[in-house]
Amino acid sequence: LSEVEPAKHGPLAVIAGAGRLPSEIVAEMTERGDPVVVLPIAGLADGSFGAHQGEAISILDPAGAIAVLRRAGASGVVLAGTVHKPRLGLVLRGWQAVRHRDEIRSVVQGGDDNLLRGVVRFLEGNGFPVRGVGEVAPRLMAPAGQMGARPAPPQAMRDIARGFEALRALGPLDVGQAAVVCEGRILAIEAAEGTDAMLRRVAALRRSGPVGRLLRRGRPAVAERRGGVLVKAPKPGQDFRVDLPVIGPRTVALAAAAHLHGIAVEAGGVLVVERPRAAAEADRAGLFVVGETP
Amino acid sequence: LSEVEPAKHGPLAVIAGAGRLPSEIVAEMTERGDPVVVLPIAGLADGSFGAHQGEAISILDPAGAIAVLRRAGASGVVLAGTVHKPRLGLVLRGWQAVRHRDEIRSVVQGGDDNLLRGVVRFLEGNGFPVRGVGEVAPRLMAPAGQMGARPAPPQAMRDIARGFEALRALGPLDVGQAAVVCEGRILAIEAAEGTDAMLRRVAALRRSGPVGRLLRRGRPAVAERRGGVLVKAPKPGQDFRVDLPVIGPRTVALAAAAHLHGIAVEAGGVLVVERPRAAAEADRAGLFVVGETP
Repeated sequence: LSEVEPAKHGPLAVIAGAGRLPSEIVAEMTERGDPVVVLPIAGLADGSFGAHQGEAISILDPAGAIAVLRRAGASGVVLAGTVHKPRLGLVLRGWQAVRHRDEIRSVVQGGDDNLLRGVVRFLEGNGFPVRGVGEVAPRLMAPAGQMGARPAPPQAMRDIARGFEALRALGPLDVGQAAVVCEGRILAIEAAEGTDAMLRRVAALRRSGPVGRLLRRGRPAVAERRGGVLVKAPKPGQDFRVDLPVIGPRTVALAAAAHLHGIAVEAGGVLVVERPRAAAEADRAGLFVVGETP
Repeated sequence: LSEVEPAKHGPLAVIAGAGRLPSEIVAEMTERGDPVVVLPIAGLADGSFGAHQGEAISILDPAGAIAVLRRAGASGVVLAGTVHKPRLGLVLRGWQAVRHRDEIRSVVQGGDDNLLRGVVRFLEGNGFPVRGVGEVAPRLMAPAGQMGARPAPPQAMRDIARGFEALRALGPLDVGQAAVVCEGRILAIEAAEGTDAMLRRVAALRRSGPVGRLLRRGRPAVAERRGGVLVKAPKPGQDFRVDLPVIGPRTVALAAAAHLHGIAVEAGGVLVVERPRAAAEADRAGLFVVGETP
């Protein structure tokens, strides 16, 4: 490892997975005049980052990543972007061979934590403070109020309140980042499956026809009407550096496929990736997308 | 309608859908010496009920059902058995044609209630008290303690407690009859999809392989190990006459397919259909099934 210490005033390093988020962070930081460098994760990051692109890093080589961060003179790190399954599969092909190397063990092990928390510990233990996306690019977080052309109609307010209530009730149990509520009835609660899978489940429930809906104890009149709201919020005490609630264009498309009327997220607590595209998709599908201060 | 009033000391009428539950109720009541008559729902009820079989009723003819109950001299009613989709589809084929008849409207309409609550109101409004399965056949409810060969191991106790805790937190919101917990982490919470669908979801989560599990933020060591518990309990204030939490042999099979270690239900609060078969299936699959007093 290099003997160079992390720079106090160097650029923020964006360790970039897939998707548009790393570029969105760069755009917001650059507009503000803050120095930023993107370190694409080999095999995962999308596209290029022009003048802001730095050396690629490998998730199989934590020590190498620290060396790259030092050479970049990074003052800190933000983890951004998603890791698509097929591509992560390629990257992890050599995983079994290297998993007993000490530095990887120090990342993936350690009590009841998850992989990303291990990554954060590893980076911070090497002197690179890890910051949250909302901290370095606050304008990417959901604002209060409507994000598309439609406001939330008054009759959606009860469902929105009920959704936040359910998420709040579950928060102490470290579960429940999202729920779907229709006319006061909670149709789905997200646990380990993720928001997309939950929305697909609601779409399937509604595809099952009037007979299926009767059997699910839905009042027929309720079940036959379209409607309902996706409500999403961070869990209390959630570490935004490793686990940020996100919506984006795909969330809107899945909510539309589930025949929901709209999406309500906690203002300042949920990241909206590709907001212009998400808002346009919502307008096209007739959904509202709003930030609420619960 | 007949002018005959409901009998104070007549037999209890079991209005029977599909499955073994109506027969199980008859067996327990007969053993106790209590009079009982089964009124099979045409097109839905399974098998025959020997000396206890009464006239069939049609779910399209509520007034006719009241007449049958009066002719049977029923002192009360219990609704039992399931309504399988394909068969209910057959029965409901004529639904559109008759849905505006007053008596059917009085069953399916009425505020925020569900169909079965409408049925209960209709029966009670005609003088037939509706009783819960657990009230007329209490031995069908889960006892406290183990139901198969295996007790719950000490290390399952934390997951069991956490599951009951999650269900309790959601109870005031009228949702959350079941959850799956593995090593302290809540993997799934049931809302409108039903327990079977939730268990299939957990099985699918686990089929998705180590890469998928990493992405779902599972600690790899946890996700790779099999284990976890299905926890099921009634919601506070749940009306057992219309909505009784149930487990049975199929629940055990689905829990096994999801690689769970066992099932914990609230003692006295969950019906166990075909308990001997469910226990045998659990023993075969290596699962525990226990009743807990949370």
